[in-house]
Order: sequence, then C-alpha cells, then structure tokens
Amino acid sequence: MIAGLLALLHAQRGPPLRRTLCLFVLRGEESAWFARPYLGSSALFGRFDPGWLDLPCLQDPSLTLGAAMRREGADTDVIAARTPLLDPAALSHFVELHIEQGPVMVARGVPVGIVSGIRGNHRHPSARCLGEAAHSGAVPRWLRRDAVLGAADLAMRLDASWRALLERGEDLVMTMGIFTTDPKEHAMTRVPGEVRFALEYRSESERTLDDFHALVEAEAAAIARERRVRFELGPGVRTPPAVMDPRLVAHARSLCAEAGIAHEVLASGAGHDAAIFANAGVPAAMVFVRNEHGSHNPREAMDFDDFLLAAGVLRALLLTGAEAVGR
Amino acid sequence: MIAGLLALLHAQRGPPLRRTLCLFVLRGEESAWFARPYLGSSALFGRFDPGWLDLPCLQDPSLTLGAAMRREGADTDVIAARTPLLDPAALSHFVELHIEQGPVMVARGVPVGIVSGIRGNHRHPSARCLGEAAHSGAVPRWLRRDAVLGAADLAMRLDASWRALLERGEDLVMTMGIFTTDPKEHAMTRVPGEVRFALEYRSESERTLDDFHALVEAEAAAIARERRVRFELGPGVRTPPAVMDPRLVAHARSLCAEAGIAHEVLASGAGHDAAIFANAGVPAAMVFVRNEHGSHNPREAMDFDDFLLAAGVLRALLLTGAEAVGR
Repeated sequence: MIAGLLALLHAQRGPPLRRTLCLFVLRGEESAWFARPYLGSSALFGRFDPGWLDLPCLQDPSLTLGAAMRREGADTDVIAARTPLLDPAALSHFVELHIEQGPVMVARGVPVGIVSGIRGNHRHPSARCLGEAAHSGAVPRWLRRDAVLGAADLAMRLDASWRALLERGEDLVMTMGIFTTDPKEHAMTRVPGEVRFALEYRSESERTLDDFHALVEAEAAAIARERRVRFELGPGVRTPPAVMDPRLVAHARSLCAEAGIAHEVLASGAGHDAAIFANAGVPAAMVFVRNEHGSHNPREAMDFDDFLLAAGVLRALLLTGAEAVGR
Repeated sequence: MIAGLLALLHAQRGPPLRRTLCLFVLRGEESAWFARPYLGSSALFGRFDPGWLDLPCLQDPSLTLGAAMRREGADTDVIAARTPLLDPAALSHFVELHIEQGPVMVARGVPVGIVSGIRGNHRHPSARCLGEAAHSGAVPRWLRRDAVLGAADLAMRLDASWRALLERGEDLVMTMGIFTTDPKEHAMTRVPGEVRFALEYRSESERTLDDFHALVEAEAAAIARERRVRFELGPGVRTPPAVMDPRLVAHARSLCAEAGIAHEVLASGAGHDAAIFANAGVPAAMVFVRNEHGSHNPREAMDFDDFLLAAGVLRALLLTGAEAVGR
C-alpha cells in the first residue's frame, strides 16, 4: 500500500517539487498493546509522557512499553526527556489518508471524505447509579429508589439533548457502551439497587464537550432529586479534539470539485496521528476513503477505485497545500 | 407464634363458637427449594400439577419434590391424581395473618393492614433488545442501532404509563430487575448491540395486567421502528391475581374502626396461600402487621404491640366473618 502510494507521488505530472516530501511511518498509533495511542507522533514532538514507559503490555504484563521500545531500537532517554525530534515549524503541512471507520460515506454514496476535525472525547469509564434494592411486588412506586430507572432516565435525557444539539448543527456522539445491574445481586423480582455504566461523548468542539459535560451533571442531579437515587460519575478522562486546517479543508474541497469527485466533509470519530500534528501547530488535513463494515474488523472492505481517487486528492494536497496555508 | 395465636383464639370473650375453627399449617408456601410456591394449599384443593413432582431441589438437584414429599409422609399418588383433600364449600371463610413485606405501613404510620387482594403478575424473565454493535466515535446517531437506548426508552415509556395508571387509581408495580449489556462484548467505546433484561409487572387486577401487557408490546414495536432495534420479549409467565372477599374487607374495616385501630386497605405484592383459597372459591381475607425492612431479611422487625392489634382483628374476623359473607 505504501509502495503504491509512493509510486503515485513520484509519478508527478505537475510542476517540479520545490520542497522535500516527507513520508512519516509512525509506530504505536493504536492503543491495542499498551492502552495509550499516538506513541510515535507524540515522541516526534516531545509530547511523550515519561510515565508511559512503565505501562505494561496488555497481552504480557511482564513487558513494559519502555523495554519494548528499546528492543526496537528507540532511544528512550531522549524521548523521556521530551526532546522534540522535529520542529513543527519545519513542516509546511501534514496530510494523512485513512479509510473511514464509520458507515457515513457508504450510506451517503461518496468515495472521498475530507475530515473537518478529529473528535476529542470525555469519558466516565466506571459510573454508577445507586438506589435501594427492594421486593418487586411489595414496594410501591412512591417508595422505590430504582437504579435502572434512574440510569435509563439519564440515558433518555442525554439522548434527547444529543438530538437537539445535532439539530442545531453541533458535532456530537454519545454512548453508554456498558450498562449493567450487579450479576451477584440482581433478580427479576428485586427492585435493582445499583447500575454500573460507562459514558462517553465525543465532539470536534471543546465547547460542545464542556456544554455536554455540564448537561450530564445537571441531569444527573435532577434525576437524583426526582427518583431518590445517587449518581457517582467517577473520574472523568478527557482527550482534546483537533481541528483540521480550514484552509486545507477548503482547498481539498476545491480539488475534489475540479476533478469531479463526489465528496463530503465529515468529522473523524476515531483518533489519528494527524491530531498530534495539528495540536503541535502543523496545518493538517485528512482524506478518508469510503469503506464498508467499519474498521478493526475482518469484514472491512475498501474498493480500490475509491482508494485511487482519494490517493489522487492526497497527492494534490501534498503538492499544493503549502501555498493554501501560505507556508 | 402459633401457640400464642391459639391462646388468643381460645381466650374468647364473645358468644360461644357455633362452628369448628380450623388451623391450617401449610407446607411449601415459599418457592425457595423447588421454585414453585403454594405446594400445600394447591394440594389441599386438588390443584397440584403432577409435573411438579419431578422438580429438582435447587440446593440438591438429585432430590425431587416428589421424593422430598414422600419422605415427609405425603401420599403423592393421591395428590398427583388432583384429588381435593377438602371441599371449599365446607369452609365459611379463610383468614391469614402476615407481616407486611413492603414499606407502606411504616411510611404511613398504621399498625394494621387489611389486604384488598394479592397481586398476580406477568413476567418476562429473559427479554432482549437487539441492535448492532459499532464504533462509538465513528458512527453518527442517525446510523446507530443502540440496544441500551432502545431498552432504556422502553423502561422510561413504561414508567410514564405506570405513573399515569397509578394516578387513575389502578393497582400496579413494574420492575426491570435485570438490565445488562453482554459482559463478553460490551466496552466503553462500543455502541452496545444487545441488552438482556427481565420485566415483571404485578396488579390485583387481571384487566390491568392485560392492558399493561398490550402497552409493553405496543411500546416495544414503536421503539423498534424509531430506533431500528428489535425486541425479543421471550416467553411470558403469568400468575393470576386473587381478590380478597369485599364483604370481609368491609367487615375488617368496621372491626378496626370500632376498636379504634389505625388501619389501611392495601394490596399484597407478595404471594400468600390466601390466594389459593380465594381462587378455589373460599371467601378469604388477610390482615397485615406493620413491619420494618421488608421480609426475607435478617433486619425485618415487627413490634409485638402491633402484632397483638392485628391478631385481635384476625380473631374477630374468624369469629364473625361467616355472617359477613352469609355462610
């Protein structure tokens, strides 16, 4: 894939290159082994937290990230000192090509996507709603403290607010991926006294994340009063969003329009190294290729014609993007 | 307790008894060993299903109910033939005394309760809401099929209808005691594709159970359309309600009023042998004693003064109830 991409880049028919074209091959963008993404790009810009070196490998806890990096030849002393390996000002811009990991482009029938931004997120991995277990037949509604109804109420209120924010044009996704009564305690004939749930919301906009967080806290407090339950949202974990350079986005749209390529501007819900480049101050862009069945999935399926269209946009963006951002 | 009760009954100061007073000591009212309640009272009226003899003991599956009954001296051939051991017409009425198993009487401050009926129930022990698992960051709201939001929507719609039915004076309790995403599949960053839940509702009124069942099916169908999920409610299990004799209820209220005993008419959410007597055609009544912390609980706590008040009502009902029902 990379060889094909390089061939495409070198088969240039336009004006000769006036700059050096850098191909970055970045390690550890995924978090599957050490639960921490963007390892290579973070190291590149001196943003690698030295504490990460002690992270255990999820598949083999006797192996730390630091040991694994040294085994592959990385100088972990330099990286842990947060020494930038590259000056962001030395790069005119950065462009990344990726399959879309969601179903939007297939649903809308467009082969090429221009990414507006990479969603940040706010997560509560281990939230709880606490009520009081009771006999399901003998306790009337007015004396119940039902944890399932409390947590379901939160889910429905947040879903309604999510919908309202989308109608106003905000970027947001919201998920309660885990929602479970206690298997050691729950029973069909018992009013549930506890629900454990995970709550995650993502947005391109830091302000939307803040607003939604305030909404979560306000709704939880209102439900606690009304239903006599208690919410423990637990520690929140935040990852900031990254905005793709609006000039590069506009330029990519023009390139697609000129070439007659059906395209759409959309947010990336998954994380990418482009977020680290953008947040380090490098004007960044991303091009998505239409792809079926999501990603991290043996059924993911990209059409090679779509890939060639998107790679053409990548090539043009690399060759002409510096002027678009005035660098 | 039974000895004290008999002493109270025999220390009668009213007119001499014109009928035989029967004390029933009924085995197997609870379902803790063989998952089937009302064993003794069902056998009494020829309503013992012969299939129950094969039920395994939950604590020792090598022991069947039939073997356990024979070991205790029961003639299981006669019982399995559904031979009534007692003609319901031979009884003028039946009265049962029990602690309240819910918190209503403590909350309202009344020592004696007169039971209006024993709630029947409709149960779906293993219902499911099925959607489609997906990436929590990359799939927008309009392309999701979120099983947690589907099942939470059902919980909220049923809760709202429950509240509306209570405001109209219907008797109902509703519980989703189990509500869980799949522990083998769920994750904070995954749109949940499946929720397993248990749904139970109880009412004194068969019509209310029927109405609520129709509502469950209609709401599930509406949510399935709106949220592109699918509900599998699974097999439903029904236990019919039992109405306490209204003439005995009215008589018990008069007895309390005459004796200056604070009391309240309320439904029994838990099952009792009185339900079997009532459904066999015997006019039946129940007297509740105020009790803290529910039942089946080491903290359950009844005040003995409350017990004496309730036992006095039991005694009066036994002695004068036959006239109230004209038998």
